[in-house]
Amino acid sequence: MDSNGNANFSVDMKSKFLQVYEHLKAEILRDPAFDYTEDARVWVEKMLDYNVPGGKLNRGLSVIDSYRLLKNGKVLSEGEVFLGCVLGWCIEWLQAYFLVLDDIMDGSHTRRGQPCWFRLPKVGLVAANDGILLRNHITRILKMHFRTKPYYSDPLDLFNEVEFQTACGQLLDLITTHEGAMDLSKYKMPTYLRIVQYKTAYYSFYLPVACALLMAGENLDNFVDVKNILIQMGTYFQVQDDYLDCFGDPQVIGKIGTDIEDFKCSWLVVQALEQANESQIQTLYANYGKADSSCVAEVKALYRDLGLEDVFLEYENTSHKDLISSIEAQEKESVQLVLKSFLEKIYKRQK
Amino acid sequence: MDSNGNANFSVDMKSKFLQVYEHLKAEILRDPAFDYTEDARVWVEKMLDYNVPGGKLNRGLSVIDSYRLLKNGKVLSEGEVFLGCVLGWCIEWLQAYFLVLDDIMDGSHTRRGQPCWFRLPKVGLVAANDGILLRNHITRILKMHFRTKPYYSDPLDLFNEVEFQTACGQLLDLITTHEGAMDLSKYKMPTYLRIVQYKTAYYSFYLPVACALLMAGENLDNFVDVKNILIQMGTYFQVQDDYLDCFGDPQVIGKIGTDIEDFKCSWLVVQALEQANESQIQTLYANYGKADSSCVAEVKALYRDLGLEDVFLEYENTSHKDLISSIEAQEKESVQLVLKSFLEKIYKRQK
Repeated sequence: MDSNGNANFSVDMKSKFLQVYEHLKAEILRDPAFDYTEDARVWVEKMLDYNVPGGKLNRGLSVIDSYRLLKNGKVLSEGEVFLGCVLGWCIEWLQAYFLVLDDIMDGSHTRRGQPCWFRLPKVGLVAANDGILLRNHITRILKMHFRTKPYYSDPLDLFNEVEFQTACGQLLDLITTHEGAMDLSKYKMPTYLRIVQYKTAYYSFYLPVACALLMAGENLDNFVDVKNILIQMGTYFQVQDDYLDCFGDPQVIGKIGTDIEDFKCSWLVVQALEQANESQIQTLYANYGKADSSCVAEVKALYRDLGLEDVFLEYENTSHKDLISSIEAQEKESVQLVLKSFLEKIYKRQK
Repeated sequence: MDSNGNANFSVDMKSKFLQVYEHLKAEILRDPAFDYTEDARVWVEKMLDYNVPGGKLNRGLSVIDSYRLLKNGKVLSEGEVFLGCVLGWCIEWLQAYFLVLDDIMDGSHTRRGQPCWFRLPKVGLVAANDGILLRNHITRILKMHFRTKPYYSDPLDLFNEVEFQTACGQLLDLITTHEGAMDLSKYKMPTYLRIVQYKTAYYSFYLPVACALLMAGENLDNFVDVKNILIQMGTYFQVQDDYLDCFGDPQVIGKIGTDIEDFKCSWLVVQALEQANESQIQTLYANYGKADSSCVAEVKALYRDLGLEDVFLEYENTSHKDLISSIEAQEKESVQLVLKSFLEKIYKRQK
């Protein structure tokens, strides 16, 4: 069910959304700016089908949800729904681009239950160029569907800025993890929060709402508070992610977490470093970032000793309370509804 | 000397151009869209200095040269020169972005006389994200300096389109080389020309002139002929490159060519396949794409037997004649001067 309790709406919307994917893919494959060979067309189609539509599509779908709420629940025209889907897919394309390249950088093996794109034998490092192509498709799509709008440069600027912030967040993450692997004490809360804000929150939380605001004719400069609330929410979402990686049910979340083995700058390790005594810190240093399952078990036991499950519950409740009060301070009711709809989708999530 | 015979102008222009690099770098390092840590700032500065300004800068400098010619040699204001330099640097940033990622994909070792960025021990595959950052800096620079211009979306569209075409050309090259490595007969002239057009000619030849035309207030839709001439010129430039890789003087070109060892879809091998008899084709199949120096020598001997040096000279003369007549068919003299200035810089080049 969506946040309005309308299950059919969500199902229909998802199937409509997937239709628009096929439409955009077909446009890209006959883009006159490139003289495709048959081989190139086959490659790009496979690459898109493998990497773009296979996620949960939450980011993309929330553009239309948000737009509908901003229009006070008014029934949207076919054209409005279509354009909302187009912007939604641009976010999914952006996500695919990041994931294809992140997987190469992290040396990952699987993604969304299948081998990472670059792991396919006939792909390899060609995947780096495919990542670039995915990124370029966004500007092709925006040009095809927004070029004649008076506000055309706004979505261009928005996607450019958010992409820049995400890449900066990724840089910070890479630098921090590199340094943390040599000296765990580099993992501190302000650094953690900065990474999460830039690497995840902007594109996952702010971007969908910003797209909806642009479609509603708003000037984003007037929505700095909304941006900050969404960044807060994105931070809370990532903390949950870090928590579930260790304490979630693998059956429910659909993967086995490896943040401890991978030396990740996770909310849990940052909390542990803040709260541990001298001997516990030694335990962390000796066991964090090691593939050995007994090391992982030591770290998890330490997290339990430190009561991090309760610390998380406390954080979750405080965050929720703070977010609700920031949201209710918003003047426009439609904006409140958009923000609450996001919050409802993630509060106390188990996956 | 530049094309107007003014040696001082070129020297001054290059030093002015390099000053603008420092200016743009400083702006990027204090971009309010990202909350830099000191480590991140140090990283980005090193990465920029390593990858952006170390090339010949021909593409970037030619924006200002072209703009001056389009303004009929009128002395440009400080502000005009500055903006021309800004667009010129955007092209150099684009080039750096492509090179950083291409070197990863090709597994290259050196670039511009130093190890490839990703080969530095402390960099590795973080270089992929640095490539993305370089790409993002272009949109940051354009926003900082062109946001208030009425034609702001034109340079955005131009860079987006040319980047897309270059990435498509790279895809075609990767697919073709992959197939050619299994079956050399896939290397055919139409494929070769298509790769060169998209992968090299758009961004190296069309883009600088298109930037200058935008600054001069022109609508690029009215310059399709100019685009086609520049694509032709870019093709000629790449054929020269392929020729010099095999027959040029390594002392003069500054590197030892490895196109034969690397199984490249080079103009020479495409010509050889067109002209060789059955037994010569067998020789090619047996020796092309092998690191062994005796195999390389066999291929070079075959190229000589087939008279490819003369075929190249013939191609060079015909191309030059065709280009001159297309250029002289252009209505505006200033446009003719721009195109001739490009052609002069590359005709019969030895490096």
